[in-house]
Amino acid sequence: MNPRDPRCSGRLQDLARELAADYQSAGGINRAGDAELPSFARVEAVLQDLLTIVFPGYFGGRLGARACLETFVAAKIDAVYDALAEILGGTLAFCAREGVHTPQPLPLAGADAPAAAESLALAYLEGLPGIRGLVRTDVEAALLGDPAATGRDEVILCYPGLLAIAVHRLAHPLHTAGVPIVPRLMSEWAHARTGVDIHPGAQIGPHFFIDHGTGVVVGETTRIGARVKIYQGVTLGALSFKRAPDGSLARGGRRHPTIEDDVTIYANATILGGETVVGRGAVVGGGCWVVASVPAGGRILTHTHADR
Amino acid sequence: MNPRDPRCSGRLQDLARELAADYQSAGGINRAGDAELPSFARVEAVLQDLLTIVFPGYFGGRLGARACLETFVAAKIDAVYDALAEILGGTLAFCAREGVHTPQPLPLAGADAPAAAESLALAYLEGLPGIRGLVRTDVEAALLGDPAATGRDEVILCYPGLLAIAVHRLAHPLHTAGVPIVPRLMSEWAHARTGVDIHPGAQIGPHFFIDHGTGVVVGETTRIGARVKIYQGVTLGALSFKRAPDGSLARGGRRHPTIEDDVTIYANATILGGETVVGRGAVVGGGCWVVASVPAGGRILTHTHADR
Amino acid sequence: MNPRDPRCSGRLQDLARELAADYQSAGGINRAGDAELPSFARVEAVLQDLLTIVFPGYFGGRLGARACLETFVAAKIDAVYDALAEILGGTLAFCAREGVHTPQPLPLAGADAPAAAESLALAYLEGLPGIRGLVRTDVEAALLGDPAATGRDEVILCYPGLLAIAVHRLAHPLHTAGVPIVPRLMSEWAHARTGVDIHPGAQIGPHFFIDHGTGVVVGETTRIGARVKIYQGVTLGALSFKRAPDGSLARGGRRHPTIEDDVTIYANATILGGETVVGRGAVVGGGCWVVASVPAGGRILTHTHADR
Amino acid sequence: MNPRDPRCSGRLQDLARELAADYQSAGGINRAGDAELPSFARVEAVLQDLLTIVFPGYFGGRLGARACLETFVAAKIDAVYDALAEILGGTLAFCAREGVHTPQPLPLAGADAPAAAESLALAYLEGLPGIRGLVRTDVEAALLGDPAATGRDEVILCYPGLLAIAVHRLAHPLHTAGVPIVPRLMSEWAHARTGVDIHPGAQIGPHFFIDHGTGVVVGETTRIGARVKIYQGVTLGALSFKRAPDGSLARGGRRHPTIEDDVTIYANATILGGETVVGRGAVVGGGCWVVASVPAGGRILTHTHADR
Amino acid sequence: MNPRDPRCSGRLQDLARELAADYQSAGGINRAGDAELPSFARVEAVLQDLLTIVFPGYFGGRLGARACLETFVAAKIDAVYDALAEILGGTLAFCAREGVHTPQPLPLAGADAPAAAESLALAYLEGLPGIRGLVRTDVEAALLGDPAATGRDEVILCYPGLLAIAVHRLAHPLHTAGVPIVPRLMSEWAHARTGVDIHPGAQIGPHFFIDHGTGVVVGETTRIGARVKIYQGVTLGALSFKRAPDGSLARGGRRHPTIEDDVTIYANATILGGETVVGRGAVVGGGCWVVASVPAGGRILTHTHADR
Amino acid sequence: MNPRDPRCSGRLQDLARELAADYQSAGGINRAGDAELPSFARVEAVLQDLLTIVFPGYFGGRLGARACLETFVAAKIDAVYDALAEILGGTLAFCAREGVHTPQPLPLAGADAPAAAESLALAYLEGLPGIRGLVRTDVEAALLGDPAATGRDEVILCYPGLLAIAVHRLAHPLHTAGVPIVPRLMSEWAHARTGVDIHPGAQIGPHFFIDHGTGVVVGETTRIGARVKIYQGVTLGALSFKRAPDGSLARGGRRHPTIEDDVTIYANATILGGETVVGRGAVVGGGCWVVASVPAGGRILTHTHADR
Repeated sequence: MNPRDPRCSGRLQDLARELAADYQSAGGINRAGDAELPSFARVEAVLQDLLTIVFPGYFGGRLGARACLETFVAAKIDAVYDALAEILGGTLAFCAREGVHTPQPLPLAGADAPAAAESLALAYLEGLPGIRGLVRTDVEAALLGDPAATGRDEVILCYPGLLAIAVHRLAHPLHTAGVPIVPRLMSEWAHARTGVDIHPGAQIGPHFFIDHGTGVVVGETTRIGARVKIYQGVTLGALSFKRAPDGSLARGGRRHPTIEDDVTIYANATILGGETVVGRGAVVGGGCWVVASVPAGGRILTHTHADR
Repeated sequence: MNPRDPRCSGRLQDLARELAADYQSAGGINRAGDAELPSFARVEAVLQDLLTIVFPGYFGGRLGARACLETFVAAKIDAVYDALAEILGGTLAFCAREGVHTPQPLPLAGADAPAAAESLALAYLEGLPGIRGLVRTDVEAALLGDPAATGRDEVILCYPGLLAIAVHRLAHPLHTAGVPIVPRLMSEWAHARTGVDIHPGAQIGPHFFIDHGTGVVVGETTRIGARVKIYQGVTLGALSFKRAPDGSLARGGRRHPTIEDDVTIYANATILGGETVVGRGAVVGGGCWVVASVPAGGRILTHTHADR
Repeated sequence: MNPRDPRCSGRLQDLARELAADYQSAGGINRAGDAELPSFARVEAVLQDLLTIVFPGYFGGRLGARACLETFVAAKIDAVYDALAEILGGTLAFCAREGVHTPQPLPLAGADAPAAAESLALAYLEGLPGIRGLVRTDVEAALLGDPAATGRDEVILCYPGLLAIAVHRLAHPLHTAGVPIVPRLMSEWAHARTGVDIHPGAQIGPHFFIDHGTGVVVGETTRIGARVKIYQGVTLGALSFKRAPDGSLARGGRRHPTIEDDVTIYANATILGGETVVGRGAVVGGGCWVVASVPAGGRILTHTHADR
Repeated sequence: MNPRDPRCSGRLQDLARELAADYQSAGGINRAGDAELPSFARVEAVLQDLLTIVFPGYFGGRLGARACLETFVAAKIDAVYDALAEILGGTLAFCAREGVHTPQPLPLAGADAPAAAESLALAYLEGLPGIRGLVRTDVEAALLGDPAATGRDEVILCYPGLLAIAVHRLAHPLHTAGVPIVPRLMSEWAHARTGVDIHPGAQIGPHFFIDHGTGVVVGETTRIGARVKIYQGVTLGALSFKRAPDGSLARGGRRHPTIEDDVTIYANATILGGETVVGRGAVVGGGCWVVASVPAGGRILTHTHADR
Repeated sequence: MNPRDPRCSGRLQDLARELAADYQSAGGINRAGDAELPSFARVEAVLQDLLTIVFPGYFGGRLGARACLETFVAAKIDAVYDALAEILGGTLAFCAREGVHTPQPLPLAGADAPAAAESLALAYLEGLPGIRGLVRTDVEAALLGDPAATGRDEVILCYPGLLAIAVHRLAHPLHTAGVPIVPRLMSEWAHARTGVDIHPGAQIGPHFFIDHGTGVVVGETTRIGARVKIYQGVTLGALSFKRAPDGSLARGGRRHPTIEDDVTIYANATILGGETVVGRGAVVGGGCWVVASVPAGGRILTHTHADR
Repeated sequence: MNPRDPRCSGRLQDLARELAADYQSAGGINRAGDAELPSFARVEAVLQDLLTIVFPGYFGGRLGARACLETFVAAKIDAVYDALAEILGGTLAFCAREGVHTPQPLPLAGADAPAAAESLALAYLEGLPGIRGLVRTDVEAALLGDPAATGRDEVILCYPGLLAIAVHRLAHPLHTAGVPIVPRLMSEWAHARTGVDIHPGAQIGPHFFIDHGTGVVVGETTRIGARVKIYQGVTLGALSFKRAPDGSLARGGRRHPTIEDDVTIYANATILGGETVVGRGAVVGGGCWVVASVPAGGRILTHTHADR
């Protein structure tokens, strides 16, 4: 027998009691028994299946040589439907009970929650062909935008910007439907892997290309048009926050810029403010700092070669 | 039978012999048999358990519906105590034997190493309630600082800045106790997931908030006060390195800035130097470059909208 | 029995049929049955074994206390040889069939593909001692370059910049041999973990040091000399793209800068253009924007402390 | 793309439709959606934890060198309590709904099921010290009964008879409490591993020893006294089944023999019938066939060396 | 560094060389590189999927609450089809090349092997509804035959005899189709779990019941009618083997008995010989030894209670 | 928060305290902290590697298509050497400390234990080619002995008797070397899978064949010659145990029979006693009971067809 020093054991037991009491105290960061809170692992599993539906053969393991595509995708859809209805039902019940602030009213308030969660999941899944169509334009944009790309396969397998955009296209409809936390868990999954942080509330048009991507931040109320191209380190952010009369941050309203069609924004540029509009076809140079609107076709290029 | 081409096999065997001999040569990057060297996987396992103790129900899987919180946390504490005592004992013995440079004297020099490692682990664990209290202030800071946050649950589950800070708060006391490598493995675990690189030596006050976070660098001798807010891409770094008379880098002294209470530093700003102090309540604008002190309440905002 | 609502089921089956038909349509992003396409998981497994060969004892789990180094490395080499020959054979066949754009002619065109893939894998493996030698210089560079480093062990275990460089040194020879996609999967593996994005085409001399690393981008045709040191957020990129007469991007030629021996480039600096040369021993300050050449020994330091 | 022959696919889809329709037909062996049916995997997980509580250090992995025994066993008990309450609640609800035949009335009929399942689980767990006490006598019996045994450790680690008895001692109280299926899943787990098939209804006294064990069968209504010893291939079975007036098997009553204290039964002997009593201290020889009672101290040894 | 004693290492390397040379010597038990040889693990995976198709909800994990049965079974069928075609193609090619003795001519001799394997797999799968129908009669037989059975669910979950029969019903059609080794791997999977050893060649009618089962052996050319009931330890075996003029065992012909409809055979009875017929409705008592035919309705009961 | 009923929790905590105290009481079945006790899982892992060395390609997963046999077997040998030295060192230290009864003196008494364990492991491994040679004769014996066998591959993959014999041949030399428990864990691993229980002390000649095997028991001091063939349910056991003057079982001496060359023993026969010799070429009929010697060439066939 190998008994541990009993005094030491006593100190550890006191510590356990202290922490357990703290977990049960009011307020704070205590969710030890809330089974309805969505978990990172379950949302990640759903997201992996969604990526497999969008990119079969690239994500999600190989298909057997004799596999039937329809059976394959039906099984994935079935799995996503079941898991997503479960997650949405739990999340919405949790948020209603806890009074979580949400950008719009919760979709299930006052309704039969499980059935409503199933309807929401079903409607979401029926949007997948449209999402796949949008992502296809993003693959084209990468192929056209980077001379180092050898083909669509390299773009899908190796471009973190494309992964971040695809996850955004999967997360955004959940945000639009009023679901809290779940689309944010999806966008953080992509952020952790790619360094690209796109809030699921951002509205982004087709043919979007992010090259390299590390450090890109796209805020919640950003609007991006078609055929926009941005590079690593670009921030599309808020200029300053308005405060309500009680001093708390005002949560509504546009805080982030509008980027119109065919704009290019080079590395580490920063564009801030809800009233800032970068007009159609404009170019923002690398490292530029933009807090007022840029007209269509404008070129912002203040950085020049430094004297020696 | 499926024999491989014997000539090819011969070339691979020669290669194995060459590499094995190189592994055994003096100097260099050879640790093939050093069981005491701490491994990434073991430190990560401890860190996951520590995060579960700090955030039960958010990290570490769900509790069973009938689980007893005290038993749950006692088992986690027990597992951490055992693993941490093992890791610390091995690491300190390894560093003493190999003459690793450490910022302060190794805590176990000349002592009964296993017992000393257990004392160190026990003292560390008894600091957990205090760490949990600090992290609670960081959750509040995020909730107050970002209008897009819907509640504490989203902050804990989805904000990489909070994860980086929580890991720092867990790694810093090990650094302070003179343990090498182990706290750095913890901070790199967070860096890899969040893009936020905080050296475990940095001293950081309560209510710290990092938004988005990718690219943030906080150096070893940085001091940060209470209620400080920083954004993605901020560097709190060294201005230049002093050299000893023999040309080697001088390792002691303050190399990184002091950030006083209530300072806000916007995205991609860079603040350098051990004598640089950003005074209480100051604001450093996005992309600014600061290599001298800023007075209390000062505003550094050199970037303006570029002309068109 | 728990039958699902048949109407709902019908809608999901229609969805499966729609997606399956789309997967089989011409063009686009359809690779459901292409077993030869290299997969992320298999390339990652090879890369892990390669890192174990380069850093035995640090990567790849502990050796048993009585393990024979030669047997250990022989088994790793055998596993890499088999898997790499498989991956290369499949990738090159796939790219030839699909007409993937590659920087140089595919090495197997017109040859006996499996045997050629084995030759390629064998030649690659025989370069490993040389790669290990180069990586050793990079470890030295980190140790000399960062006063916070406590020793080689910390550098190898905790410095993401070193990991990114080591992966580059493993990926670059495959790019040089004309293999598409596979070295890019390797460099993206490192990019996802470290935030450092080095294209496998870049040519980099010994004693290379990247500190912190998040946000670093090194383009395909970059050339870096010996003893170069760069910090987080540095971009070595293209200034603008040339277009062919038909409007498509011109894919050949130098697009990225040349960095000569002993250059230091501080955080968030941007150096662009295929004709830009930063001369021997030059220093580029943090956040600088460089689009023309810098003479040997030059210092680019336009950022100064902003007025208050 | 690698499409499968569409005709083949069609035949497989027809097959799926045929089987799915059959699963939903009335009667038969269809439980596709009955989440309350106890599963083998969940019962096995509980059983593994119970064996770890009975034999800590032998089953269930090693304890950490500094583990606290009380925390260790508390965590196991907690896990068993939660899982067992879940399984019992589901099983009893399922059996009540499906009208499963059970030896006695279901314990939860008409009660608040989840609370009743928790009471049942709690009462069961409080019997564990008594079970451990009984198993200790079985270890002693093996040590005394087999000259090849080197010690208690070998008996616990290597004697399948002991494993079968220990599982019986864990399953029997659940059977006694009126729980169907769950104790039978436990006894079949032991049967599959050891070849020893003891129905959880059998009543068995202390100091029970089964040597080798393969092929042993002990029927539902068997009663076995103290210090009984049996060998491989022994059957304690039913002589013939009584039928009810409607021709169905009569399920109540004693069908299996009574074995009194201190009896030894050698290999492959068969003892049948509910009225058969093998008296205190009797010996039944190998391969004997016994269908009537044996007096106390009797010796049944009809097999002798055959003539040549 | 922790080098092993080089002399010891040398002895182990000599041993490796000796064994490697032996693996490559002619004859014997050397299959190190024969990828086509069926493996236990792959056949087991297919068998698990087949059991899930036969018993959905009992085997193969739970279905999600909203799962579509048709999608579920279609995905299982697809997986089995792919894996089985792969295994059959490899096995038959291997056996043809190696000249394995098979009971009937190999089905693929001279044909397009992969296509023939797919046809074989497809025809096999189309027999699954029939197999499920037969197994349903076996469940009924167990329910009727054992007064201890509480219902169909217990029979399916807890009766090893039923598992052995179900696996036999899945293995037998492959044997009939002339496939070597694969059906034997299936029957040995069941033998290892249940102690019931039924050769896949045995022909067995509906409503078959094996109680307890450990030690049952049913030989290759056995024929069993409908509604037969057997208990643990029953052998249906060969009396003696005929030899060919060259002394080798004669492999064709009936070697095992015929058991007609409605026969009951009690525990440990042995019935031997290809000309032995146990007639309709006969009963063979426990432990009996039968080497000649028994007329319809006969009762073999030589064992009586031994004198004391 | 989901707190459990505190009264219930209290009862579970009392239970944990009661069991923890019992674990620490003197005597009994307490090994919670004895890290040196060999574990089933570790011995099983070594045994799997040993079976892979004996049967490469059949056990232990497939070799890669380009794998080098010598590297493959060297890596397996290395792993076994390390693990076995570890297990033997721990086991022998444990047994010496605990005073475990062993058949012969422990090999390490008074010696440098780790080095002695390494010597023992090395000597054991050098016996592997001899073991492989013996097993090859057993494969031949099965092929010659069973007309249903289609070839060596089926014998190796599908015959549980061969698996049991191979494990015995691997366990026996450890028993001979005086190692307790470890060889018994190996033989029980085989017993659990095959129903064949061969004590590692039994001495068995070449060309041994066990058909079907379930229920076979071969005792510790059994001696079996060459070319012996036995069937399911055969017991080679002890007749009765001698007792020492103090009443304890006498542990030395021959207790089990001698079976000379070329003997065949049919199903369920029982042969008992240390002085019983079954002479060369004898045949023992199915179900026979033998407690005295049988002359060379004798035939024991008392069972005849019962009258009706």
